[in-house]
Amino acid sequence: MQGQPKAIAVLTSGGDAAGMNMAIRAVTRSALARGWAVYGVQEGFAGLIAPPEEGKISRLEARDVGGILGRGGTVLGSARCKDFHDEKARARGIDNLAALGVDALVVIGGNGSQTGAHALHEQGLAVIGIASTIDNDLEGSDITLGADTALNVAVDAVDKLRVTASSHRRASIVEVMGRHCGYIGLAVGLATGAEAIVLPENDVSPDEVAQRIVNAYERGKHHAIVIVAEGARHNAQALAAILERDHRERVRFDMRVTVLGHIQRGGTPTVQDRLLGARFGAHAIECLARGEHGVLVGLRGSEVVTTPLAEVIGKQKPLDLDLVELAHVLAQ
Amino acid sequence: MQGQPKAIAVLTSGGDAAGMNMAIRAVTRSALARGWAVYGVQEGFAGLIAPPEEGKISRLEARDVGGILGRGGTVLGSARCKDFHDEKARARGIDNLAALGVDALVVIGGNGSQTGAHALHEQGLAVIGIASTIDNDLEGSDITLGADTALNVAVDAVDKLRVTASSHRRASIVEVMGRHCGYIGLAVGLATGAEAIVLPENDVSPDEVAQRIVNAYERGKHHAIVIVAEGARHNAQALAAILERDHRERVRFDMRVTVLGHIQRGGTPTVQDRLLGARFGAHAIECLARGEHGVLVGLRGSEVVTTPLAEVIGKQKPLDLDLVELAHVLAQ
Amino acid sequence: MQGQPKAIAVLTSGGDAAGMNMAIRAVTRSALARGWAVYGVQEGFAGLIAPPEEGKISRLEARDVGGILGRGGTVLGSARCKDFHDEKARARGIDNLAALGVDALVVIGGNGSQTGAHALHEQGLAVIGIASTIDNDLEGSDITLGADTALNVAVDAVDKLRVTASSHRRASIVEVMGRHCGYIGLAVGLATGAEAIVLPENDVSPDEVAQRIVNAYERGKHHAIVIVAEGARHNAQALAAILERDHRERVRFDMRVTVLGHIQRGGTPTVQDRLLGARFGAHAIECLARGEHGVLVGLRGSEVVTTPLAEVIGKQKPLDLDLVELAHVLAQ
Amino acid sequence: MQGQPKAIAVLTSGGDAAGMNMAIRAVTRSALARGWAVYGVQEGFAGLIAPPEEGKISRLEARDVGGILGRGGTVLGSARCKDFHDEKARARGIDNLAALGVDALVVIGGNGSQTGAHALHEQGLAVIGIASTIDNDLEGSDITLGADTALNVAVDAVDKLRVTASSHRRASIVEVMGRHCGYIGLAVGLATGAEAIVLPENDVSPDEVAQRIVNAYERGKHHAIVIVAEGARHNAQALAAILERDHRERVRFDMRVTVLGHIQRGGTPTVQDRLLGARFGAHAIECLARGEHGVLVGLRGSEVVTTPLAEVIGKQKPLDLDLVELAHVLAQ
Repeated sequence: MQGQPKAIAVLTSGGDAAGMNMAIRAVTRSALARGWAVYGVQEGFAGLIAPPEEGKISRLEARDVGGILGRGGTVLGSARCKDFHDEKARARGIDNLAALGVDALVVIGGNGSQTGAHALHEQGLAVIGIASTIDNDLEGSDITLGADTALNVAVDAVDKLRVTASSHRRASIVEVMGRHCGYIGLAVGLATGAEAIVLPENDVSPDEVAQRIVNAYERGKHHAIVIVAEGARHNAQALAAILERDHRERVRFDMRVTVLGHIQRGGTPTVQDRLLGARFGAHAIECLARGEHGVLVGLRGSEVVTTPLAEVIGKQKPLDLDLVELAHVLAQ
Repeated sequence: MQGQPKAIAVLTSGGDAAGMNMAIRAVTRSALARGWAVYGVQEGFAGLIAPPEEGKISRLEARDVGGILGRGGTVLGSARCKDFHDEKARARGIDNLAALGVDALVVIGGNGSQTGAHALHEQGLAVIGIASTIDNDLEGSDITLGADTALNVAVDAVDKLRVTASSHRRASIVEVMGRHCGYIGLAVGLATGAEAIVLPENDVSPDEVAQRIVNAYERGKHHAIVIVAEGARHNAQALAAILERDHRERVRFDMRVTVLGHIQRGGTPTVQDRLLGARFGAHAIECLARGEHGVLVGLRGSEVVTTPLAEVIGKQKPLDLDLVELAHVLAQ
Repeated sequence: MQGQPKAIAVLTSGGDAAGMNMAIRAVTRSALARGWAVYGVQEGFAGLIAPPEEGKISRLEARDVGGILGRGGTVLGSARCKDFHDEKARARGIDNLAALGVDALVVIGGNGSQTGAHALHEQGLAVIGIASTIDNDLEGSDITLGADTALNVAVDAVDKLRVTASSHRRASIVEVMGRHCGYIGLAVGLATGAEAIVLPENDVSPDEVAQRIVNAYERGKHHAIVIVAEGARHNAQALAAILERDHRERVRFDMRVTVLGHIQRGGTPTVQDRLLGARFGAHAIECLARGEHGVLVGLRGSEVVTTPLAEVIGKQKPLDLDLVELAHVLAQ
Repeated sequence: MQGQPKAIAVLTSGGDAAGMNMAIRAVTRSALARGWAVYGVQEGFAGLIAPPEEGKISRLEARDVGGILGRGGTVLGSARCKDFHDEKARARGIDNLAALGVDALVVIGGNGSQTGAHALHEQGLAVIGIASTIDNDLEGSDITLGADTALNVAVDAVDKLRVTASSHRRASIVEVMGRHCGYIGLAVGLATGAEAIVLPENDVSPDEVAQRIVNAYERGKHHAIVIVAEGARHNAQALAAILERDHRERVRFDMRVTVLGHIQRGGTPTVQDRLLGARFGAHAIECLARGEHGVLVGLRGSEVVTTPLAEVIGKQKPLDLDLVELAHVLAQ
């Protein structure tokens, strides 16, 4: 791309995240305000490389993105796309855009999606990434679009579990999302006063979990909460089975397992995710307007910044494990 | 009991339900307003028969039940109690009450709990039951205390699942509570526009479920919702496994299973459950004041009524299966 | 209309209410399932009598009412329409329908709307009313569509006000909707443990309100809640002004006034309103299918029933004032 | 204070804010974990200077702050205190603490409260401030404790107003908190897609507001939202009156005013406010442990930092007015 684009496209990819719709709206209206044309790509990279007759890429006008800012998920849809690892498939995607006069693409998504974005960039397309994943594991952004809503949904669910656990003098073992990254587990555990937080980055042995439940009981608590990230060594079911088998007598509380699952993806976007979506989307268009691309738009402190996609992909943002210790102290 | 009681006790038993606290408050303050003493029993029947030195039965004053009307669960706690099937154990419970001068008991709970209440009544205690279970399966009340909140929590969760299902063009198989009774499943299915509703009372074959998902896909829907009561012939995991094994090709949507579990018990009580709790609790005291006992307090139409406990126990309120057909028509 | 209609229309009128969309969906899909055509009228009676070239009446297919069941308000829109009091204007509306082959109309709304529905019926159109108003003041239905959601929104707001009132040792004077009818005020007051409930049907003097606030203070409460219906003799502002002027010294709490206003109309429909909307909408079509019209669809106990529109209009359902007394006892 | 304190006190002051309870819990348990004694002061500075026989200062143990992390407001209470501007009154407060062996104080609050904290510090008490106000106008913290919850409550209310405004083709004029600072108004306006945002820092003339409502109507929108901070030149009522008087014909929408008021203070704390409360509270104790005081604990980027109270008081954090322009572009 030389100078400013005349037409851009936008897609969402990977797991859906609350705030994606606000970002789509901001990308669209910011670009329209500059007089550019805007195309929406349905179903992520799969839609990008689909044959044009499938009609997965279509014009977006200002009214097309009206009324979506308060809705979770993504109106453009998302999908996995194995073919996209193939350079030729990606070239078809670039051709599809070129046939419509589109010379720049905004990719809203997480780690895998930005790897795809980077590959397209390497093949010559002007690409901007927007950091969006509920896992908050993406380098280049202190917090990613969608994480705040997911956390609030998960904490609301654990608050409900605590009510019933407390009524029945039970321990509640709760599995939250986070296959490789314990961010959600850590934040949920700290926010709900969990007795133990078991993460991929912070393995707590079943024996230690049992001990913390015992301690809670002995301090007179009416319930105990254990938060387990899905990617921990033992998932919630497995952990509960070990506790039942090896520690039944010490652990005086009855135990119940809940796997929160996909409800964590849904939910009305929080204010923070709406503001991030608006700012990230508008910033992506500013970058393209000044000829910057090949970068990820993210947040540093309270500033919206960019980081080269090449520096972002394949990495995982480390977790602040001091907060695990803090959670432990505060649950006393 | 002859004439009005001088002192009463109140307990909650079985699964906790939102609104129980409002009922405890109403029982307590209505009785205090008549000049009676009120005792709260912790942990249900287990607390009733515990040795007095464990201190499970204690006085409740007006301020003790302040600030609880908006909280889910039960401040008195609940527990299972196998010993309570033993007549001698129950006699100990009656003795415990007598030692405190208590000559009447209000039991807030569902089917099993009212069976216990009836047994105490048979042994000579003045007992009033309050119909409270999220399953809404209790004869003697059109709707039971706690069901409305549980439904709203479950529907809120399914609304969230629909958002992400729709973003990814998926079918969402959701398991809701209801071991013997499909009320929650039916109401949630109708309220969320589910493609299929699988209940203990309404078995839908996996083949038929597959066909309905196919139909949704072909009508252009971006998602499909299947609601499964936990007590259905196949639970949600089993149903999904069969669909994957036998119908993978027809069912074009990806499928995801979510088991809502105990979050359905929690939640801030809805207005309906607060009003029911207040009215049921006050009515229980009116009954005792006029010498009526051995009955369950419930709702008929918009009236609070009583039904002899003997007519209630061991029965299950039938489900209005016309609503299953309605749900099917409306999901087109 | 002779026999079954071939085509029907549906409109929403008066104040919007949560659940109207579910009713629109149920009317539409139930009628389509019988092979009838369905038309949606925008903006209530105003749209009905608008010149055809304004395009306010258009076909509804099954997909047109997809995805709306969880949204508040009405996708058809609503509006006031003074012209509709004119018989000639109504005749134009009937002609507009006839020109499209429509021979039956479903009117979803409250008292004023059903008066319009009855007038159309008198002029020969087959009309069915669906009882929908947040005020719950309509004869012919124990509870009207939309009331449950409005109550839950209002109680959620008062719960928030209590938190801050309690932190600052304040009295919170809250005005809720209800111009002629105190239903919302009564239910909200009972559900939130209000010290005083001031309604059109239950005038409580400022002196008495002051006394109850004083009593709360003296019982050691950290806050007091006063619920005022907008149609009470003194609205919330006026009441607070009198309390400040005449009772400042007795009332030890600071006072704050909040007028909840139109947020009470919004909100995601509760389960009860979704189920009512589905059942009412489907029942309206069953009525038309068997040739019944000129009636209002409502709820009696747990049954959906019909009442002649002529018996409904111009009346106001009386309030159960025993509940005011109950609220007073329970707030001790 | 020389070396580590042996006993500390904590108070909340000024308007209550969600997350204060989490901060109280974190201060208390972090201090207890170091072996210090902890005292809670009721009703802010008023409680601090009250005669000891009123019993406003009492010991806090770990269990005393159990179960409060998910509650809005402040369990310690808050109050205004004019006397505190008097040096002698403050000296009484320091004496009250000294009599209990307390040699350090944590003050959780906003601008006025930190001014009081600084005055105590000047008189020799070891004081740490924690930045907490829903207005987010405090220098020394990018975001203050409580702001995120207030924003989410306000946006939820505006989402509800949009539903009903859209059903009736109306403009909704909404007043949010912010006497001197437009942060809430700006964030709410951007998050809800408001047509116009009127702030103390960004005066928009009634003529311009009218024009933006007209533009929304002409673009085919079914509603318009105008957000007004309470401290703007014209408040919401005044603005609406001017629009009715001078611009009634241009503005084709009906208009409705809603003043959100104190509901913005309430609400269950969001995850962000819980995490901030935990981190700020723990950090305050770390500061005292290493002998640092006279500072405000706040957030810079994603780090918890301290700023001398002397640099914070009497200042107001400037607003990022670029976001007003962004909101305008995105509302097209």
